Amino acid sequence: MGDPAGVGPEICLDLLADSSIAERCVPIVFGDAEVLRLCAEQTGKMSDFQVIDQENLDSVSSPSVLDLGLMDLEQLQPGTVNSATGKATYGYVTQAIEACLAKRVDAVTTCPANKGAMQSAGITQPGHTEIFAERTRTEKFCMAFICETISCSLVTVHAGYTEVPDLLSEERITEVIQLTRETHKNLLGSEPRLAVCGLNPHAGENGLFGNGEEEKLILPAIEKMKEKGYCLTGPLPPDTAFTESRRKEIDAYVCMYHDQALIPVKALAFEEAVNVTLGLPIVRTSVDHGTALDIAWQGKADASSLKAAVNLAVRMSD
Amino acid sequence: MGDPAGVGPEICLDLLADSSIAERCVPIVFGDAEVLRLCAEQTGKMSDFQVIDQENLDSVSSPSVLDLGLMDLEQLQPGTVNSATGKATYGYVTQAIEACLAKRVDAVTTCPANKGAMQSAGITQPGHTEIFAERTRTEKFCMAFICETISCSLVTVHAGYTEVPDLLSEERITEVIQLTRETHKNLLGSEPRLAVCGLNPHAGENGLFGNGEEEKLILPAIEKMKEKGYCLTGPLPPDTAFTESRRKEIDAYVCMYHDQALIPVKALAFEEAVNVTLGLPIVRTSVDHGTALDIAWQGKADASSLKAAVNLAVRMSD
Repeated sequence: MGDPAGVGPEICLDLLADSSIAERCVPIVFGDAEVLRLCAEQTGKMSDFQVIDQENLDSVSSPSVLDLGLMDLEQLQPGTVNSATGKATYGYVTQAIEACLAKRVDAVTTCPANKGAMQSAGITQPGHTEIFAERTRTEKFCMAFICETISCSLVTVHAGYTEVPDLLSEERITEVIQLTRETHKNLLGSEPRLAVCGLNPHAGENGLFGNGEEEKLILPAIEKMKEKGYCLTGPLPPDTAFTESRRKEIDAYVCMYHDQALIPVKALAFEEAVNVTLGLPIVRTSVDHGTALDIAWQGKADASSLKAAVNLAVRMSD
Repeated sequence: MGDPAGVGPEICLDLLADSSIAERCVPIVFGDAEVLRLCAEQTGKMSDFQVIDQENLDSVSSPSVLDLGLMDLEQLQPGTVNSATGKATYGYVTQAIEACLAKRVDAVTTCPANKGAMQSAGITQPGHTEIFAERTRTEKFCMAFICETISCSLVTVHAGYTEVPDLLSEERITEVIQLTRETHKNLLGSEPRLAVCGLNPHAGENGLFGNGEEEKLILPAIEKMKEKGYCLTGPLPPDTAFTESRRKEIDAYVCMYHDQALIPVKALAFEEAVNVTLGLPIVRTSVDHGTALDIAWQGKADASSLKAAVNLAVRMSD
């Protein structure tokens, strides 16, 4: 359900009421039934959702709310950052992860968490992704964005511009290539066509720009994986990698840094791309927006990112 | 005409034969008539173009070739890099610049040059842009890409990834903001809405990522120009700067590095965007592709980038 004070409850209500979602899967909101009822009242959304407890979890067959009762309604102030909602957010996601590891649910899709609220509740992980990695004891994982228009995996994520080159290594690039290939092979049912971007303009243009990162780090990783039979091209000049004609030939890109991936993803497929964590032992997708506290509980939130994330989670767990 | 051994001659033939171009301006190819005739023969293109010499330049009123006679046909090998065509390329462009400075023509659009060919002919400037800057004695200029879908100006251009932060300064960012505002104010006839991108992911997210480049260099430049009445926003998180809804609110972007500008430009408007040099005392636009030696003189070249560049040059010199 994400942070109760954000847009999470409202978009969960929309999800529960969506018949096209119910045709594809059994959505179960890990959250608080009272919070959802209050939010439904305030936003005019459907409030007659089915409520279950842990005992019913294995037998549930229609859209439901698993009532975890973690939120004291007196401490709930929609649109604000506070430790009570941060603590509840953490409880919802950890219970969902446990349920997924125990195979009681098939996949987890996360609604937005608020970093400040979780921090003030004493949670040390900066975000959902780190909680998933820790709880599932995963060391090799990466962030990816997946949709029909464009799919990108990230070698580095939340690093400053100048820090990126030091974070690149042949090992890490190889790891992200492997994670990307595995996921897209499962999604496509065949060998995916992957492209790896260079770091420098024109991918260095044979040493003209940059410090040879393409030759030293990226190319060896590509060649090693090609030998294993991967369908792989690169290092591509980043600027021409994402043209319309190129995209038709590529199922997924491996990108060196945050904006190299996120600029084309958001320019081309802002509402469509789903944030996925690759490498976990369970399927995890996420909405691609924050808690949007400024419009929380006002009936203005758009559930399309959540629905896209749930649909991809269904495809990935098939 | 660009490098005679590349696609330049062929796309010039297409330009001369295009009636919609002739309705908007009088295109004059600064090149070699014999080269164009030979290329027309080989590619099956129209060869009955009008040929003029320097004396007719001021009175010409229909599409023409200004025959500079710089190329010895015996030294011409289409599809190859050689010093003879590099030297001719340099001659065509410098004569066009002189004619424009003397107000005998209104704007210059360049066809592709080959860096290797110019180098082997002893030309010291790495490309057309530097020749324009030197010949027009211009110190403050920048590269920009302009079209309906998206327009971006570049603070840094052909620098390796790691070199970019050292090349950024408040002064240079201010300069590019000014050049961008001037050009787009002329094009629009009103105050353009400009956006400046940050350098780091999320534009640094209040110091969370990066070395404070946004606060130290970019924000002061923005605030100074806002005081002068510019319509300016930023530093924007680069990944959300180019979403469809954002683009509707922005006439031009100021980008910190090559791929920050060129990834969205080529992903969104590959065939449409025109390369322009801002800050010159004359109008200069350019095709957005290279000599394409592998398809030169085969009737396969696409003149749409040249036509877009000519059309923008017409708008800019109105």
